[in-house]
Amino acid sequence: MSVVESISRNIYPLDKRSMDRAMDRWNSLIHPPYSLGKLEELCIQLAGIYSDSNLSVPSKAVIAFAADHGVYEEGVSKDPKSLTRYHIPNFINGKSGVAAICRNNGANIYAVDVGIDYDGQIDGVLNYKIKKGTDNMAKGPAMSRRDAVRSIEVGIEVSERCIVKGYRMLGIGEMGISNTTAAAAIISVVTGLDPFEVTGTGATLTELEVSQKVEVIRKAIAINNPNPTDGIDILSMVGGLEIGAMAGVILSCAANRIPVVLDGYVSYAASMIAYKINPRIRNYVIASHISKERGSIKALEYLGLSPFLNMGMKLGEGSGAALAFSIIDTAIFSYNNMATFDEVDLGERNNVQDVDVDE
Amino acid sequence: MSVVESISRNIYPLDKRSMDRAMDRWNSLIHPPYSLGKLEELCIQLAGIYSDSNLSVPSKAVIAFAADHGVYEEGVSKDPKSLTRYHIPNFINGKSGVAAICRNNGANIYAVDVGIDYDGQIDGVLNYKIKKGTDNMAKGPAMSRRDAVRSIEVGIEVSERCIVKGYRMLGIGEMGISNTTAAAAIISVVTGLDPFEVTGTGATLTELEVSQKVEVIRKAIAINNPNPTDGIDILSMVGGLEIGAMAGVILSCAANRIPVVLDGYVSYAASMIAYKINPRIRNYVIASHISKERGSIKALEYLGLSPFLNMGMKLGEGSGAALAFSIIDTAIFSYNNMATFDEVDLGERNNVQDVDVDE
Repeated sequence: MSVVESISRNIYPLDKRSMDRAMDRWNSLIHPPYSLGKLEELCIQLAGIYSDSNLSVPSKAVIAFAADHGVYEEGVSKDPKSLTRYHIPNFINGKSGVAAICRNNGANIYAVDVGIDYDGQIDGVLNYKIKKGTDNMAKGPAMSRRDAVRSIEVGIEVSERCIVKGYRMLGIGEMGISNTTAAAAIISVVTGLDPFEVTGTGATLTELEVSQKVEVIRKAIAINNPNPTDGIDILSMVGGLEIGAMAGVILSCAANRIPVVLDGYVSYAASMIAYKINPRIRNYVIASHISKERGSIKALEYLGLSPFLNMGMKLGEGSGAALAFSIIDTAIFSYNNMATFDEVDLGERNNVQDVDVDE
Repeated sequence: MSVVESISRNIYPLDKRSMDRAMDRWNSLIHPPYSLGKLEELCIQLAGIYSDSNLSVPSKAVIAFAADHGVYEEGVSKDPKSLTRYHIPNFINGKSGVAAICRNNGANIYAVDVGIDYDGQIDGVLNYKIKKGTDNMAKGPAMSRRDAVRSIEVGIEVSERCIVKGYRMLGIGEMGISNTTAAAAIISVVTGLDPFEVTGTGATLTELEVSQKVEVIRKAIAINNPNPTDGIDILSMVGGLEIGAMAGVILSCAANRIPVVLDGYVSYAASMIAYKINPRIRNYVIASHISKERGSIKALEYLGLSPFLNMGMKLGEGSGAALAFSIIDTAIFSYNNMATFDEVDLGERNNVQDVDVDE
């Protein structure tokens, strides 16, 4: 049995008993039932994931995977391709967006080279390079099925290293010039929507350039004809190495009962790959923000996820995941530190409480 | 000249020069232009408010005003009226929702009695009681024009005390059984929408009970016929003492060039009162979350505000304002700590940068 199959077979439903206990805890806290909305839902989900209604603020890290894309040569990005390798050091030296947000929110960050088009070793970046970027999907498969599987395995391996180190919540991020093109292709194949509906400007395209990007994606899908029910086939035909690795983190977190916080658009595509491998991953995923990239709302609807941040962000890197950490911490702090109806004098309201909760 | 008029005459436009400098700073930071969305907008707005593009994380407090409502006797709430006075101590002892969120986010909280139906002094609560709750607006004006003005003055006085203490960002919150009824009436009068479209379940009503609440609001508006262009008239006819005080904080913050973070539904109504007194307040207001209470989206559209949190929350208290503080802190930290294009080697991308920014 392959690593991916083995991980996938170890994904179980959430622990309903712990979720019920967390719900009871919320109902015992001095506020109208459900009035803290997502703060309550997050804690209930975490209880189900950890199989424990006693929650503490988890140690957190973002894992950001970097890779290049052969489809770059079709002119789908305005940035130089070399930006992938030049920018990735800024993830670990505290200078990029995700790095600053992680620092502010007390989270660590790991950067992983899973396929940068560069021969050297980049200081501080974990080297899991599979190949120097995907092939041009507008001319054939982005990668072999074997490399697609390996990219998922890299995500599994790196996340398990983090879990062994003691992280109890992981966020996913990425860096890869042209990777919104691969993500759009995946989202189009999985949702069945025309590429036009789910393709945006990426980092810096104009609307006119987006229509050229849409044509490239149409061509890639037509040439490779990925099987929309087979996550690994989609990944190998029109995906990216960093997208496969992100899918691996999601599968691994689900199997290890660790919550995984999504970022934006590219992470939605990675979630779809993981979802096609095992739909149970959805319970272990926390959506952070609605990316500004076109198609984000449709991708989130397909996955049945409701992000709680609407920042108009489309940086990627893992920035949205890192930003969401602070809200999740606040949810857990409130769950642990608000008083119960038994602990305070609310006059007549103390008697009303039982009625409300039973209803 | 009255205090309210004097404050209102001292509200000036934002400082465009500082905003331009903040925008230049963002454009110099290593990320695609505008890709950090609201994080960028928040800093640019703060620069305009403070007249300074050098931003530091501000000292923050939530001011929560509590008052009772005569319209309670129409059966618009299921909670006992006494809950206002019994619950308000939990704002300052760390046990309520807003208190827990403030503690987690390093903000202080002040609770102010501006009209609780209770004769005693409540420990730790600032006593600015104007009267023991409003009168029943379904039978006549909620309060005299003089008391409406005094409630705004209370907000001005308490916020100025906070500003003198050194707080550089204030959030507003409230506690008052039946105050979503007053807020819905204000929102209906200001937007011209039928009460049915902007009235929700408050803390614990069923949908059937909401229709009775709508009838009470219709009656209150019909009997009092508030002048929709006169914020103080609306406040006195169908408002609340805590709503007036929140409007006072907004006006005072705008005049003192201090950002004021809104909470949910009741705070939207307070913003409308302040907006009717001086529409320039809008520039000094930061919307935090979209309340789950019906009518919230319409109220926000009227005010032209876009919250960045979508938590499904409807607790009030100031909980949403306190939650937003952590995002604002992260925005400022990123603005100050990300590297500029000049400081790092991005290969060919360093040369591309100038072109992008000039476009």
